[in-house]
Amino acid sequence: MAIVVQNIERAAPVIISSLAKVGVATVHEAQGRNGLMNSKIRPIWPGARIAGSAVTISAPPGDNWMIHVAIEQLQDGDILVLAPTASCDMGYFGDLLATSAMARGCKALVIDAGVRDVADLKDMGFAVWSSAVSAQGTVKETLGSVNVPVTCAGAIVYPGDVIVADDDGVCVVPRQDAATVLSAAEQRATLEEERRKRLASGELGLDIYDMRPRLQAKGLRYV
Amino acid sequence: MAIVVQNIERAAPVIISSLAKVGVATVHEAQGRNGLMNSKIRPIWPGARIAGSAVTISAPPGDNWMIHVAIEQLQDGDILVLAPTASCDMGYFGDLLATSAMARGCKALVIDAGVRDVADLKDMGFAVWSSAVSAQGTVKETLGSVNVPVTCAGAIVYPGDVIVADDDGVCVVPRQDAATVLSAAEQRATLEEERRKRLASGELGLDIYDMRPRLQAKGLRYV
Amino acid sequence: MAIVVQNIERAAPVIISSLAKVGVATVHEAQGRNGLMNSKIRPIWPGARIAGSAVTISAPPGDNWMIHVAIEQLQDGDILVLAPTASCDMGYFGDLLATSAMARGCKALVIDAGVRDVADLKDMGFAVWSSAVSAQGTVKETLGSVNVPVTCAGAIVYPGDVIVADDDGVCVVPRQDAATVLSAAEQRATLEEERRKRLASGELGLDIYDMRPRLQAKGLRYV
Amino acid sequence: MAIVVQNIERAAPVIISSLAKVGVATVHEAQGRNGLMNSKIRPIWPGARIAGSAVTISAPPGDNWMIHVAIEQLQDGDILVLAPTASCDMGYFGDLLATSAMARGCKALVIDAGVRDVADLKDMGFAVWSSAVSAQGTVKETLGSVNVPVTCAGAIVYPGDVIVADDDGVCVVPRQDAATVLSAAEQRATLEEERRKRLASGELGLDIYDMRPRLQAKGLRYV
Amino acid sequence: MAIVVQNIERAAPVIISSLAKVGVATVHEAQGRNGLMNSKIRPIWPGARIAGSAVTISAPPGDNWMIHVAIEQLQDGDILVLAPTASCDMGYFGDLLATSAMARGCKALVIDAGVRDVADLKDMGFAVWSSAVSAQGTVKETLGSVNVPVTCAGAIVYPGDVIVADDDGVCVVPRQDAATVLSAAEQRATLEEERRKRLASGELGLDIYDMRPRLQAKGLRYV
Amino acid sequence: MAIVVQNIERAAPVIISSLAKVGVATVHEAQGRNGLMNSKIRPIWPGARIAGSAVTISAPPGDNWMIHVAIEQLQDGDILVLAPTASCDMGYFGDLLATSAMARGCKALVIDAGVRDVADLKDMGFAVWSSAVSAQGTVKETLGSVNVPVTCAGAIVYPGDVIVADDDGVCVVPRQDAATVLSAAEQRATLEEERRKRLASGELGLDIYDMRPRLQAKGLRYV
Repeated sequence: MAIVVQNIERAAPVIISSLAKVGVATVHEAQGRNGLMNSKIRPIWPGARIAGSAVTISAPPGDNWMIHVAIEQLQDGDILVLAPTASCDMGYFGDLLATSAMARGCKALVIDAGVRDVADLKDMGFAVWSSAVSAQGTVKETLGSVNVPVTCAGAIVYPGDVIVADDDGVCVVPRQDAATVLSAAEQRATLEEERRKRLASGELGLDIYDMRPRLQAKGLRYV
Repeated sequence: MAIVVQNIERAAPVIISSLAKVGVATVHEAQGRNGLMNSKIRPIWPGARIAGSAVTISAPPGDNWMIHVAIEQLQDGDILVLAPTASCDMGYFGDLLATSAMARGCKALVIDAGVRDVADLKDMGFAVWSSAVSAQGTVKETLGSVNVPVTCAGAIVYPGDVIVADDDGVCVVPRQDAATVLSAAEQRATLEEERRKRLASGELGLDIYDMRPRLQAKGLRYV
Repeated sequence: MAIVVQNIERAAPVIISSLAKVGVATVHEAQGRNGLMNSKIRPIWPGARIAGSAVTISAPPGDNWMIHVAIEQLQDGDILVLAPTASCDMGYFGDLLATSAMARGCKALVIDAGVRDVADLKDMGFAVWSSAVSAQGTVKETLGSVNVPVTCAGAIVYPGDVIVADDDGVCVVPRQDAATVLSAAEQRATLEEERRKRLASGELGLDIYDMRPRLQAKGLRYV
Repeated sequence: MAIVVQNIERAAPVIISSLAKVGVATVHEAQGRNGLMNSKIRPIWPGARIAGSAVTISAPPGDNWMIHVAIEQLQDGDILVLAPTASCDMGYFGDLLATSAMARGCKALVIDAGVRDVADLKDMGFAVWSSAVSAQGTVKETLGSVNVPVTCAGAIVYPGDVIVADDDGVCVVPRQDAATVLSAAEQRATLEEERRKRLASGELGLDIYDMRPRLQAKGLRYV
Repeated sequence: MAIVVQNIERAAPVIISSLAKVGVATVHEAQGRNGLMNSKIRPIWPGARIAGSAVTISAPPGDNWMIHVAIEQLQDGDILVLAPTASCDMGYFGDLLATSAMARGCKALVIDAGVRDVADLKDMGFAVWSSAVSAQGTVKETLGSVNVPVTCAGAIVYPGDVIVADDDGVCVVPRQDAATVLSAAEQRATLEEERRKRLASGELGLDIYDMRPRLQAKGLRYV
Repeated sequence: MAIVVQNIERAAPVIISSLAKVGVATVHEAQGRNGLMNSKIRPIWPGARIAGSAVTISAPPGDNWMIHVAIEQLQDGDILVLAPTASCDMGYFGDLLATSAMARGCKALVIDAGVRDVADLKDMGFAVWSSAVSAQGTVKETLGSVNVPVTCAGAIVYPGDVIVADDDGVCVVPRQDAATVLSAAEQRATLEEERRKRLASGELGLDIYDMRPRLQAKGLRYV
């Protein structure tokens, strides 16, 4: 059952970088509120805002062997996504693996487990979204798979899907939907920009979105 | 049952800003260790230190409609306090709502649920204390109430109560007690300042507070 | 049962400061992956990297009396380690106690409970690793012990053990093993430095560690 | 600040026993979905279904002294409600205290903390809803208060309020609303009984509640 | 986006009932350790052991409207599987819905959220695996979907997949793999039966599985 | 570092069985409130009350190989105690291992991780205290140690220590202290029996323990 899929398709770089610009919240809205990972996945340092193609790893709890295997599959602009097959907070990944991943153009790691050397990772500018920080080392004993579909922190990730990540968390955009989602997200961002101006000037959402009649119909009482 | 109370009383601005200066830990002590929210409520960015009058929101899980209603009730210096009626970590609040709230002089949000656009909120200087960060969007379907008493993260908040918040968390000061609590808090702060000097000079708490006899009486043994 | 052990042995300062330099992850590996505290223990501000001799405190939940007692036992370069006898997230420690501890040369606190005044502690440069931040005050009613063996966040700490702490967490090095562990850790750090260069140049871990034959033997399939 | 309120009002026994019969879920609905404690409060043994008047205890973490004080205030049919002033999972209550409480006609304990001797409590038929089971003993050092308003597991409890508890959890009915809530709850129970028959016969909720037009209007598509 | 898929395929009843007999742990092993839901999903009463075809529900947090819609789609032997689109512990389901579901031959519910009326559900023999028990009521305001793929407690469930559930938790068997998995599971069960006899007679796993040489090769030392 | 200690000392059987009779809460009190495991360790079925000698296992996360090794070391009346070296909720232990352990006279398992086949374990009368139930299988790849000191759920366990476990949780009695602790526990049990009678007759703890003067001195006010 342990396989490495070597050729995966990726979305166009220009679409990926544009998705990064609009950010997680808007992308998530633009694709019908799907694909968001759980809120337990947090950045290990604030301020990163990134998108890339998922190279997925399904790994046993406490075993980071497959990360070495996955790194060989990385291309410029990829993001590693590791889902352990059982709940685990051990430190799968540190500065050496990050050095290796960066040498192949990898930008970031998303992992539903722990990482270590987080001060170094920050200094290197390698972005990580994880569910834990832990120095606890892992072993290299049991096989897993690379570039198979995984469920990571409640979201399904297919290899080559676009991962969008910022301080709000991580959202997965299916590769084949990336262009459509980007278009919807950019429209939404434009609309939000207009609304931001009106709201900043003191206009109320109650009026902009014409909420008063519906609130009244539902029975809201002002006292 | 869904109501909006439009006129609430607030504490005097000078009292509120003075409470901000003494900070959460001292205020909490000064009012007999009451009014503290649970430690799950954390700032989304470090360094804010604020106080304001509570405009409270009781909202269904996953429904942020009432925030729009509450914003109309905001006055300069207010703080929004949102308590969901059931446990929920969704992203109720983001940069558009913050823009609207700031346009009305609101300084901050305290919420026992999630928020999103946290990088933007930090850039805008809008302070938030929340129990989660999540891009997960909410709906506008079910009514709640504005400016009713709520229980937020274990603390009771009446509309107009003074909310004091800093990196230590959030403390609620009943509006009618604000002057008394401030006075006790400032006395305490002065006392602490003196003690800080003595402690910094190397004097021991064991001696300053005359603890040795009581420790001995209780049976502490030095070996 | 409440005792204060006044004379404890400590490791040599040069060993302690060298352990700080190599950091938690490497030290933890170098001593056979023992002594790590749980990942719930996190720094209250990022960037500290420290080592020191443990002055241990066993304290009742919600009672910080023994911290005052422990401070008298501190020597230059010590780190306070507080383990409550039952799970507790209250704020045992704040800026006054930090002032007193710093006056005696103490560098940091490790506590499986809460602390407060965290903005002040950061300004003072006093490092804390804790399982919570909370302004909730504690009492001074019940005795505990100072400089007895404690179990803190899953790790056993004997008084005088070397505490190594950084953004990855906290690791305990038994005092009598400190020189041996340091030597192993430094060797490991040197080895890692070499590997970092090779990995940075694009060489793969698969080749550096000669993993391919073993992966093949275990049945990994490339497709 | 430590007080014992000796005379509290209670609801009529017949109302209390009738509220027990309708149970937590129906009572909670009947009072507009208010007053429910968090789902972390669970029965220590299944099958109890009870109601009684709240004798409230505000106690320090890890200190059960006030339970002795509260027991003197108990009358036949009362339920003890203990809210610690900070999060705590220690074992405040065991078979000796239960023996004492039962001797005064007390039926049950609701506690946002731990209890012990749970096998004995089950044998005695003393019902407990708690957030933990723990043998960890507590002390008798610090005062708290009896029969003051408390916030317990997210619900506000005034002394004399009616506590309704069963396998679904715990709901608080304000004493002065007890008759009204009972009336609404019994109506609701009657209505549910009718609906149960129709549903059992195979009729669908979609038809009984005439949901189809509204589902269609909202855009539900059958494929 | 809100749809109801009316015709789904199901596995053969004899396969489903045989999967129930072998139970969760063996089925999970037999399909390569895939498809297990998280350990937070627990039975509300012990002793149920069941299998059935999944009728899936994707529902908003705190909104149980779609359960009514799903019940119309139930056939004899089906199991409802509800995945909320965001984390939620409210009580989506109680005795009335169970009555309706049982009238259509439904055996059980699996839900990553709360349920209520649990004493009644037990009396009715309706089996539930949930992540919470809560009397907190839900609304009927927002559409979801029925019989679409969902991610429930970390496992992907397609409509018509076989759900196997017992006191160990819940495992999902893809419909098209059901026969193969059953065959592997039964073989495994037979093998385990033989091993059970040998182990019961005092033979050691060390010898039955010939572990001693490999343990020695890895360096295990007996002292 | 992987070792199996083959000869360990055990307490006298009569002491062990007597400790079981007094139970966890009383034993814990009798040894100065030490040795209690965290409240996350719960029995998988209610009603067991047991004591035995600890055969300890230190095992990697998700690897149950060492249980086979430990079973060979079991003697009549022993209890297995497994502490994973990192947090893990996988199912390390099921009915086959229990069959093997029972064949050697083992009574129970205490594990800070998951177990499976829990319905079978209950039928077999094999008692388990664990932090999770999970069908998730483990591997046999990495060595651990048997009969070394471990930290399990916050308590230190030396091989041969007496494990006392009942519905209240698990307490560890150091082997060399077993006789002393038993004597103190039995005295305590006798004393409690007397007090139970007085309390059952309606006498108050306030009077039996002469608490009134101390409560008054501390400032308790009756209103």
